[in-house]
Amino acid sequence: MGASIFLSFRISCYHFNMDCVDLNSDMGEGFGVYSLGDDTAIMECVSSVNLACGWHASDPLIMQERVSLAKKLNLGLGAHPGYPDLLGFGRRALNISPKEAKTYTLYQVGALFAFAKAAQTPLEHVKLHGSFYNQAGYDLKLARAVLEGVQEFDPDLIVLAPSLSPMAKLGQELGLKIAHEVFADRHYLDDGRLVPRSHPQAFVTDLQEALIRVVLMVKEHKVQAISGKEIEIKADTICVHGDNPQAVWLAMQIKEALLHNGVQIKPLRAFLKGGTH
Amino acid sequence: MGASIFLSFRISCYHFNMDCVDLNSDMGEGFGVYSLGDDTAIMECVSSVNLACGWHASDPLIMQERVSLAKKLNLGLGAHPGYPDLLGFGRRALNISPKEAKTYTLYQVGALFAFAKAAQTPLEHVKLHGSFYNQAGYDLKLARAVLEGVQEFDPDLIVLAPSLSPMAKLGQELGLKIAHEVFADRHYLDDGRLVPRSHPQAFVTDLQEALIRVVLMVKEHKVQAISGKEIEIKADTICVHGDNPQAVWLAMQIKEALLHNGVQIKPLRAFLKGGTH
Amino acid sequence: MGASIFLSFRISCYHFNMDCVDLNSDMGEGFGVYSLGDDTAIMECVSSVNLACGWHASDPLIMQERVSLAKKLNLGLGAHPGYPDLLGFGRRALNISPKEAKTYTLYQVGALFAFAKAAQTPLEHVKLHGSFYNQAGYDLKLARAVLEGVQEFDPDLIVLAPSLSPMAKLGQELGLKIAHEVFADRHYLDDGRLVPRSHPQAFVTDLQEALIRVVLMVKEHKVQAISGKEIEIKADTICVHGDNPQAVWLAMQIKEALLHNGVQIKPLRAFLKGGTH
Amino acid sequence: MGASIFLSFRISCYHFNMDCVDLNSDMGEGFGVYSLGDDTAIMECVSSVNLACGWHASDPLIMQERVSLAKKLNLGLGAHPGYPDLLGFGRRALNISPKEAKTYTLYQVGALFAFAKAAQTPLEHVKLHGSFYNQAGYDLKLARAVLEGVQEFDPDLIVLAPSLSPMAKLGQELGLKIAHEVFADRHYLDDGRLVPRSHPQAFVTDLQEALIRVVLMVKEHKVQAISGKEIEIKADTICVHGDNPQAVWLAMQIKEALLHNGVQIKPLRAFLKGGTH
Repeated sequence: MGASIFLSFRISCYHFNMDCVDLNSDMGEGFGVYSLGDDTAIMECVSSVNLACGWHASDPLIMQERVSLAKKLNLGLGAHPGYPDLLGFGRRALNISPKEAKTYTLYQVGALFAFAKAAQTPLEHVKLHGSFYNQAGYDLKLARAVLEGVQEFDPDLIVLAPSLSPMAKLGQELGLKIAHEVFADRHYLDDGRLVPRSHPQAFVTDLQEALIRVVLMVKEHKVQAISGKEIEIKADTICVHGDNPQAVWLAMQIKEALLHNGVQIKPLRAFLKGGTH
Repeated sequence: MGASIFLSFRISCYHFNMDCVDLNSDMGEGFGVYSLGDDTAIMECVSSVNLACGWHASDPLIMQERVSLAKKLNLGLGAHPGYPDLLGFGRRALNISPKEAKTYTLYQVGALFAFAKAAQTPLEHVKLHGSFYNQAGYDLKLARAVLEGVQEFDPDLIVLAPSLSPMAKLGQELGLKIAHEVFADRHYLDDGRLVPRSHPQAFVTDLQEALIRVVLMVKEHKVQAISGKEIEIKADTICVHGDNPQAVWLAMQIKEALLHNGVQIKPLRAFLKGGTH
Repeated sequence: MGASIFLSFRISCYHFNMDCVDLNSDMGEGFGVYSLGDDTAIMECVSSVNLACGWHASDPLIMQERVSLAKKLNLGLGAHPGYPDLLGFGRRALNISPKEAKTYTLYQVGALFAFAKAAQTPLEHVKLHGSFYNQAGYDLKLARAVLEGVQEFDPDLIVLAPSLSPMAKLGQELGLKIAHEVFADRHYLDDGRLVPRSHPQAFVTDLQEALIRVVLMVKEHKVQAISGKEIEIKADTICVHGDNPQAVWLAMQIKEALLHNGVQIKPLRAFLKGGTH
Repeated sequence: MGASIFLSFRISCYHFNMDCVDLNSDMGEGFGVYSLGDDTAIMECVSSVNLACGWHASDPLIMQERVSLAKKLNLGLGAHPGYPDLLGFGRRALNISPKEAKTYTLYQVGALFAFAKAAQTPLEHVKLHGSFYNQAGYDLKLARAVLEGVQEFDPDLIVLAPSLSPMAKLGQELGLKIAHEVFADRHYLDDGRLVPRSHPQAFVTDLQEALIRVVLMVKEHKVQAISGKEIEIKADTICVHGDNPQAVWLAMQIKEALLHNGVQIKPLRAFLKGGTH
């Protein structure tokens, strides 16, 4: 059946060379009495976590707890700034200025940093959330503002950006460490952008296909766009979700598929090179 | 007239020894399109500023601007965390737990720190706002939580607390640098607490009296309580306001009165000793 | 076993006379992407619902949906105004003025009323939430402000208040329809107030005891306080919870116990008399 | 000089026929300790007010006060719902769904309605604020959702919409009373939309020109677009501002110019016909 076919694929392809990739997950996205997803389950699976900073989700108690847990599990710790839209979970496009983008980033990164510093564990990366991620990823003015904010706060912070996006490229030009991010369960357009969630074929629904795509993205630096065309991709880190049991299970499958194909799962700090590559 | 009488007082009393005190003011307390007070006017007068951190007031754009201005004027830069109550401007008592008190402090201090770090200027102190200040000042569980939060973030941060309050004393026991704060325009109870704002005699309304009290608090470490009794006080820093033209004018008078009595106005860093005094 | 013993109790006691009581539950207390409790399960059990109004919880989408569902199930529909403290779910004491209490009530009642009016279903009652309920229930200034707000909006609205509380009594004096509310799972003090949640014996943990207490409160107008003393109580409505499966199950047991003892479960409109009783 | 030239213009043109127009102003846009604009000054000038509902601005205390003042001055009273973006004052484009648009409208209209009902004064109209106004005015899905929300709440409410906009036309088709709104100090595009604020020629800066335009819009139903082309316009109501002394002065000039040209200033209820025109 499916699993055994896949196993042979995994064994045959990539047994002898060693690649590295990071598995990241957004978490700490509850608020007050509300919880969201099973953070502890997904934390067992990933190498990095992006913690919400109190704007699109999270609050100081949650931030403190999740930082502490990430430290205990030795996960890469990142800030996950979002739009000031708790009601919309930061998923709605909002027309902000570059100055706002920069200061919103600084504010949230600083807030999360405080918990990292208090816990004596380093803050290692920044990944924008939801619409902030999507808008800044492809709008150079917003991207520059965010990147400058990160750089002014700490030039050693790694920034996660959509794979090969304008933001990723600009970040490298600015000398920042950029982690190109891919999504295991999403289809891509020819230009490397994600097929929007509203599109009927936005998601990769077949598990086997998702696993094969992930392995190819990491090892061959390519993926089949929704048009059928093969496009270039760069996968320093793979985003997985923990907001439902199925998502956690998918994440575990992805991890296993990568390991069986000789890919090591490590936090970005372990393998990502600085701003000159 | 009043001014000349006062002048002679100023000249006669304290010409030959040199004390130091800090003048601080809460500022950056606008939000979005809203502004509050004349920050630039009061900034010309004080040696330290306490910048709101986005909870009871302020937002990232304001925080960035005010940090930049404080740096330019070489003022002592502090975070001014408040309750999550923008609607009530952080002035309403809210029943929070010590854990909340600690994490709310960390969150806001971190947020402001980000702007200080980005501006390459040090964050030097923390002063709680409004009800948070009043409640933590006299509730040892809250005080300990806040102080531990500050200490875990940066043990060199100076904490402003009500003069001789439980919080001030606990902070010194914990090894923190504590600045005892007094208010020029407020009356005191026998136990050293402020007469509540709701009391008809909460405020010192006579300018001359206010100036004399300030000078005595700084130089003689005493003040006359509302009962008539003389009580001990400690004045490392004096809080002045800038929310209306009269307040700015009062602040300038206080400054002048202090200078003419041989008191130097300096930011806390210049004279405040560490946690062993 | 327990169930059969109880069954005999139910059969023997109250088979022949008919009392009426309302079962109410707070609901619609999610927010944005967050959900809380199983509203549809508890809705099958109760005769009235109190819908959060967007301050301590809920949002316009949730309000619209729950109003629609309440209408479909012909449940008594009420507004459930809370403090402006989403972070603390309205459970933290907040020091508000009577004027704030009145306008906060009006605002939230009006907001929920809009969805009722759009759905062409009547808004029938108001029940404050959490700390607002507890503070206004026993502070006559707050109580009067809230009651006047309700009365000015619609003098026919029923107000739920703690059984025999100052607020309940004042409401009746003002001519409002007051529903005295009891809690099935909580212990009482001699003065009729609830034993605070922080007290080790705040909750009635034995199911059988809870059921007997509820039946006695409804039919005999009395309950045993935590001191052992029997105190007077009035039970027009019983609050049940739906925030976990066990709570829903308890609610169903309460309903069954009441029915088997000849108590009818009806919305307040069906049996509550106006402000002259 | 300018004023006298204008005076003769006013006298010569339109002395003998009588038109009616409403002057409206957004107000009650403070929040908590923050105030914005001089509401009492502008209230002396206009015939209708649109009161913010606590989302982009305002709070329950302000809403209550302004409703009371509007009643006292017998002004047309309207709700002014905005986006949930206090930080951006509701001026930033936000991507909301039609369902959100409808329920956000209902929530805010209901909240303001509560204060009107408590003050025993009718709520007469609804005008969206800022980006909500601009987006719904020209997006038929949002427009329909908002209009349906208003209609379900109260089909007699007047809706203010950009003059001859898709929203205005749809509202009339749905049988609602629509007030076509124009702006005295803004330039128009050929298609009847406002020149965006970011454009260097967005604003009409010459007073005389502004006054002439207003009179022509009201009496001749036309205005010169920024291209020079004369376009059709409909002016049931004119928006004026009160956020600075100059704005209040402009509003008074507009009022005077209209009166001197035989235009009566009345609230919409006095002359606007229902949904069949």
